[in-house]
Amino acid sequence: MKKITLIFSIIFLVGCSGQSENIDSQSIDKNETFNWRLVTSWPKNYPGLGMAPERIADLVEEMSDGQMKITVYGAEEQVPAFGVFDAVSSGSHQMGHSGGYFWKGKVPAAQFFTSVPFGLTADEINAWVNRGGGLELWREIYAPFNIYPIPAGNTGTQMFGWFNKEINSLEDVKGLKMRIPGIGGEVLKEAGGIPVTLPGGELFTALQTGVIDATEWVGPYNDLTFGFHQAAKYYYYPGWHEPGPMLELLINIDAWNSLPNHLQVIIETATKAVNQDMLDEYLAKNNQALTELVEVHGVELRRLPDDVIEEFREISNKILDDLAKEDETIAKVYESYLNFKNNVSAYHEISEDAFVESRNK
Amino acid sequence: MKKITLIFSIIFLVGCSGQSENIDSQSIDKNETFNWRLVTSWPKNYPGLGMAPERIADLVEEMSDGQMKITVYGAEEQVPAFGVFDAVSSGSHQMGHSGGYFWKGKVPAAQFFTSVPFGLTADEINAWVNRGGGLELWREIYAPFNIYPIPAGNTGTQMFGWFNKEINSLEDVKGLKMRIPGIGGEVLKEAGGIPVTLPGGELFTALQTGVIDATEWVGPYNDLTFGFHQAAKYYYYPGWHEPGPMLELLINIDAWNSLPNHLQVIIETATKAVNQDMLDEYLAKNNQALTELVEVHGVELRRLPDDVIEEFREISNKILDDLAKEDETIAKVYESYLNFKNNVSAYHEISEDAFVESRNK
Repeated sequence: MKKITLIFSIIFLVGCSGQSENIDSQSIDKNETFNWRLVTSWPKNYPGLGMAPERIADLVEEMSDGQMKITVYGAEEQVPAFGVFDAVSSGSHQMGHSGGYFWKGKVPAAQFFTSVPFGLTADEINAWVNRGGGLELWREIYAPFNIYPIPAGNTGTQMFGWFNKEINSLEDVKGLKMRIPGIGGEVLKEAGGIPVTLPGGELFTALQTGVIDATEWVGPYNDLTFGFHQAAKYYYYPGWHEPGPMLELLINIDAWNSLPNHLQVIIETATKAVNQDMLDEYLAKNNQALTELVEVHGVELRRLPDDVIEEFREISNKILDDLAKEDETIAKVYESYLNFKNNVSAYHEISEDAFVESRNK
Repeated sequence: MKKITLIFSIIFLVGCSGQSENIDSQSIDKNETFNWRLVTSWPKNYPGLGMAPERIADLVEEMSDGQMKITVYGAEEQVPAFGVFDAVSSGSHQMGHSGGYFWKGKVPAAQFFTSVPFGLTADEINAWVNRGGGLELWREIYAPFNIYPIPAGNTGTQMFGWFNKEINSLEDVKGLKMRIPGIGGEVLKEAGGIPVTLPGGELFTALQTGVIDATEWVGPYNDLTFGFHQAAKYYYYPGWHEPGPMLELLINIDAWNSLPNHLQVIIETATKAVNQDMLDEYLAKNNQALTELVEVHGVELRRLPDDVIEEFREISNKILDDLAKEDETIAKVYESYLNFKNNVSAYHEISEDAFVESRNK
């Protein structure tokens, strides 16, 4: 703790936390041990999402041979699910694991680093963030909050979700009460539906009692555990609202700057490995769970009609265009995102997409 | 070197290298420094492929704070491009970076851990290997060669390649002289074409002088650097022959067992991070390079006709089925691969594939 006090003093002396990178690296003791706390927006050990921070912590401890220990707290254990950003920003906790679109009230552009409707898939957002200029923008917009973000997991394309009403036309969307947060919810509203905000734990009963007509969640793996197939008739796809949501590891910048270089590289590398590991896990488990849902539980898969998809897409694009007009930061991030999306989708059309089409015919 | 001699003695004493994991971990000095040599099948610093081992080496050195240094040698510097497997197997070099399908003469099942025609995409092979039982099989089939493999990079779906003859029907495939190695070449031959084996450096001239009618290579990023657009008229897709080739880090098992646990975890994690990094890099650079090829160099993109794709697919499936009949090991790997492919492609059809189709319409 003495060390951290010292660092704060140095920051105070240089007069600006943005310059804290300039701390003389000789003041850092390479052998100091670190015990950090990590808060998350997920229940402790929640399958998939909640396992990522546990795995990052394990890898960091093993690779540093015990020099750094990270204790992971589930949502509500130390701070509320949506208090993660503030906890890391204030430095009350050194680390957090969450999703950027939860902070849209504070940092509207953060949504682009999780997922936006009709946006980038998992591979594409990885490439944009890590190799297409996205990460630099992300760090720039989180820096005023004293937070250093690292991509930390992806669920892959989420399903549109569970329905007790058939969607055969745009008319069926009117009045549809659906739990769907974020921009997806705004799109539904614009199309005549009624987006509802409810925590995960209340969804099953809300579906079963008719309080809502439909809900999105994640995908077959997480949905099967929740038992949604016992409360809803149809499982709709494609999930246009969250095509490849990327999660985030948040690190308090002062805490980050107090680490010796090898521990910083260990954290970055562990997180990158876990970013892939989560996608691998979801892909392997989702396909097993889908088979079980369809073959054992007789779930009826339904594809959204083309005109409904088209309407959702047009509304989504308009909402994003309007969002980009709100301020320069959003405009800058959106331009980079859209430019990458246009190029990468053109390339994917003649490479992986064309291949997959040939393979599955 | 004394340490290695000691380990060999222990292995000799326990009578079986397969039991070398049982070396008393107390005989391992956690602070010993290591200087390892890594041989590759790529020219030194070759963009994409050749950068992966360099990046693994950098990460390992940084994370271990200098305890472990890995020197990377390009193809032919210490061993021939296709001598990597033997070098690591014999222990003359502790590490190698290459592609498993190069060893099909020794280990036919190794091809499934790189890429087979109409097989798994990059995400799918990651999920199969890391979370679907593939890695255990891979390590089992390399163990008799005293090699421990780790997935170490993916180029994403490769292009079918550069052509000076149009392919408008199956008739046009007859007599087509094309550089295409591996099972892809066998498929071409069965369809009436003439597969040719030529090293990368001779391809440009061979195309230009008409020695070959066509060649596959990697994708826009690497192909642009080679200047193939100056030697061929058409750029064909989709690349059905290598939908998501996974590269491999090879480690001599005795060398591996001589490492303290934290260095093993550091190597595994660095390699996993680089496995994703390579795909990110290829995806970002391929889309830039494609734009340049089409907009600046006026390259003409062509899609293979459906009946040609269908013929290639049928032949591919037959070749793989026949291969699986050769021995039990191939059969076991093929069964696991095919089972995963059937399930994952069914899941992808209603998730990412359906989304991408909706987005691009």
